[in-house]
Amino acid sequence: MTTGETTPETDVSSDDVYNLDRKRVAQILFALDRDDRDTLVDLMEPLHPADIADLLEQVNSFDRGRLIRLYGREFDGDILSELDDSIREEVITALNPQVLAEAVRELDSDDVVDLLEDLEEPQQEAILGALEDSDRVAVEQSLRYPENSAGRLMQREVVMAPEHWTVGQAIDHMREAEDLPEQFYHVVVVDPRVRPIGQVTLGRLMSARRTTPLMDLLEETFQIIPADQDEEDVAYAFNQYHLISAPVVDDDGRLVGAITIDDAMIVLDEEHEEDILRLAGVGDGSLSDKVSETTKQRFPWLAVNLVTAIFASMVIAQFEATIAQFVALAVLMPIVASMGGNAGTQSLTVAVRALATRDLTGANVWRVIRREVLVGLINGGIFAVVMGIIGVIWFGTPMLGVVIGAAMVINLVVAGLAGTVIPVILDRIGVDPALASGAFVTTVTDVVGFFAFLGLAGAILI
Amino acid sequence: MTTGETTPETDVSSDDVYNLDRKRVAQILFALDRDDRDTLVDLMEPLHPADIADLLEQVNSFDRGRLIRLYGREFDGDILSELDDSIREEVITALNPQVLAEAVRELDSDDVVDLLEDLEEPQQEAILGALEDSDRVAVEQSLRYPENSAGRLMQREVVMAPEHWTVGQAIDHMREAEDLPEQFYHVVVVDPRVRPIGQVTLGRLMSARRTTPLMDLLEETFQIIPADQDEEDVAYAFNQYHLISAPVVDDDGRLVGAITIDDAMIVLDEEHEEDILRLAGVGDGSLSDKVSETTKQRFPWLAVNLVTAIFASMVIAQFEATIAQFVALAVLMPIVASMGGNAGTQSLTVAVRALATRDLTGANVWRVIRREVLVGLINGGIFAVVMGIIGVIWFGTPMLGVVIGAAMVINLVVAGLAGTVIPVILDRIGVDPALASGAFVTTVTDVVGFFAFLGLAGAILI
Repeated sequence: MTTGETTPETDVSSDDVYNLDRKRVAQILFALDRDDRDTLVDLMEPLHPADIADLLEQVNSFDRGRLIRLYGREFDGDILSELDDSIREEVITALNPQVLAEAVRELDSDDVVDLLEDLEEPQQEAILGALEDSDRVAVEQSLRYPENSAGRLMQREVVMAPEHWTVGQAIDHMREAEDLPEQFYHVVVVDPRVRPIGQVTLGRLMSARRTTPLMDLLEETFQIIPADQDEEDVAYAFNQYHLISAPVVDDDGRLVGAITIDDAMIVLDEEHEEDILRLAGVGDGSLSDKVSETTKQRFPWLAVNLVTAIFASMVIAQFEATIAQFVALAVLMPIVASMGGNAGTQSLTVAVRALATRDLTGANVWRVIRREVLVGLINGGIFAVVMGIIGVIWFGTPMLGVVIGAAMVINLVVAGLAGTVIPVILDRIGVDPALASGAFVTTVTDVVGFFAFLGLAGAILI
Repeated sequence: MTTGETTPETDVSSDDVYNLDRKRVAQILFALDRDDRDTLVDLMEPLHPADIADLLEQVNSFDRGRLIRLYGREFDGDILSELDDSIREEVITALNPQVLAEAVRELDSDDVVDLLEDLEEPQQEAILGALEDSDRVAVEQSLRYPENSAGRLMQREVVMAPEHWTVGQAIDHMREAEDLPEQFYHVVVVDPRVRPIGQVTLGRLMSARRTTPLMDLLEETFQIIPADQDEEDVAYAFNQYHLISAPVVDDDGRLVGAITIDDAMIVLDEEHEEDILRLAGVGDGSLSDKVSETTKQRFPWLAVNLVTAIFASMVIAQFEATIAQFVALAVLMPIVASMGGNAGTQSLTVAVRALATRDLTGANVWRVIRREVLVGLINGGIFAVVMGIIGVIWFGTPMLGVVIGAAMVINLVVAGLAGTVIPVILDRIGVDPALASGAFVTTVTDVVGFFAFLGLAGAILI
């Protein structure tokens, strides 16, 4: 039997950018089942560490353990960096200590820092112990910066040049240097006290005459990042000002490292993920979390929702007598609340996004509120007419149509107002609007929706 | 009267990365009111084009026109690139044609392409007419690629080197070249038919010996982008594989341009924005849209929601007799629906995100569904007990507690199931799950919630 006959086709072709397609996963699991290390290594060889991390996340825990053992010493340190926090510990535990030590030693110091942050003490020790002395010192220094700060994100290796140098001097210096960073895109120009005053791209350096002073080539956009700045603000600056790399300085303004766009892009991606999940009332969960963890993450928001739903029910309870007289109200009342909830979610999502991108500021907040209220008024008016007609046709009571129409307008206006004002207030008092706005806004639209509809019905119909 | 006395403080200091703070906006508007061009230019001088674009978005239409006129010929082409689509046309119309021509001529060809895409025909003509012949040809060539494709995103200027070159030859070539791109980070190594076979970073080039062949320095991660690839896939590749720049090829695999990470980051940001807004049922709107546009964008989702809400009401209507006998049901029924809706939104948001990041695949879809159902079962069980007790205390009817508890468990399990299965199916049939899942999932949880609660009540209580 030849390998060609027993294993699935190895000619994987796809239009997709993604190298880890379904077929390859199947082939890898097939090789795993046959304990066929050579085929496994062949199949995994073209995969990027990020793809291998995805593979480990996608398979179940049993296959994950087998895969790590069979793959053995091919295991690359970058895979650890790419892994989701939720299974990183499991993978580290499954790795042969020698393979782990070797994998970690390949990593840049900023990647080791990133790795250590989310681990328990004993695993941290194991990894720090595997590092060479100089690397360990660098990592321990980075860990002294606050969590989620620029200091943790930066790489310590920077190429710098004094302000009086020419292009020729800078190029000669670099060509003679022993240990240039793996990835760098700029030469940072510093003053005699090692404070950055600008930077020159390598591309510009390449195309300039040797005698040109570096100071003549400084990039126009130049942003200095304090080491204790929050990584969220760092990512924002990279995105807003299209930075490729930026120097990081200590409290005295001295150059201590550099952050590159790929690190910023990862943070930006995490921030987005966080926003989207928080808006939906999901904690910082991931697909590879265990059932118990996911249950715990989802519980708090559901509990908050239960409280607000009970609150809304208490409003309904005030009108029990009205409903008993006119059961059609019970049939129609969820429509008013639901429309309000949806309109409120629309407004609040736009507001939360605009706050995150800093498009919603003191300068335009009143204009935005006015706009949201107007939008609520117009859409409320349209749906009031539609729903009024439906109400009349369905239940044959014209006044019921008027009541539901009026309640609809009121609730959609309130939804626009609450959907904007609540996130803005939360943001001002320092609470993440993505996290808390939803509960408040739907409480408002539920309560107002039921109260307006049932209250008007009680006054007009009965 | 000196300027120092009448204008607000010009010493703007802030911990924030953002240069356009509230104070500066106030100062700028103050200068505008006094028609004080010098102060205005001084205040705007330190601002990045992205900040000036934000400023134009934040002020109202009247101030925008005045600002553009007073700022006059300082207006930079990059501001146009940074502007939100919604007011770009307005700004272009407000600009003096000569200022516009000059602004556009400063831009790189890929930025001009980006600018033209969203404009009406006459404005497109105006801008194309302002370009020099060679630039216009380049722009028109790019516009031949499909919208939102890599071809539109790429810059046409690439630094390339034949595969047999050494480091020395590449450096000499670059130092002699007349027109290197403004921003570049790699030398692309090509075969004799100009097909890219790898790339070398400038940093690595700098630190290698002159005699080293380029082929020995190729970067490990190398991704070739077809010109007709969707920009969304391009952004995904940059994010997944941490690319800094990637060569773009035509149908024959020949090098035609390069995409850099900053362009990919913008696309990634737009995709996230789109996802988050679509999940909330908001079209591709922005804060600077007019009331009429916003109303139109929000309308369709509200209309869909009205239909699903009416559908749910029709379920309630089936139980009118039951409710008439026992009005407490009307008070409690929104709680069951609301909890289901929230749990469903949690599941669907996680699923939509995981589909977007390709973490949810054929390999793990059944495991994820199983997990969501289990989470629904556990949380449903807990809230069933809580709500059962509340039901008994509130209404003094033990069986009512049993009914609401059972309905809660059923609805939360269904929510977990629907919240995962619906986005996966939509994704399989080619519909954006972010756009359509919400309506389907809440319809399911509303209908199941009301049906389970009222149906059980009818069977048990009456």
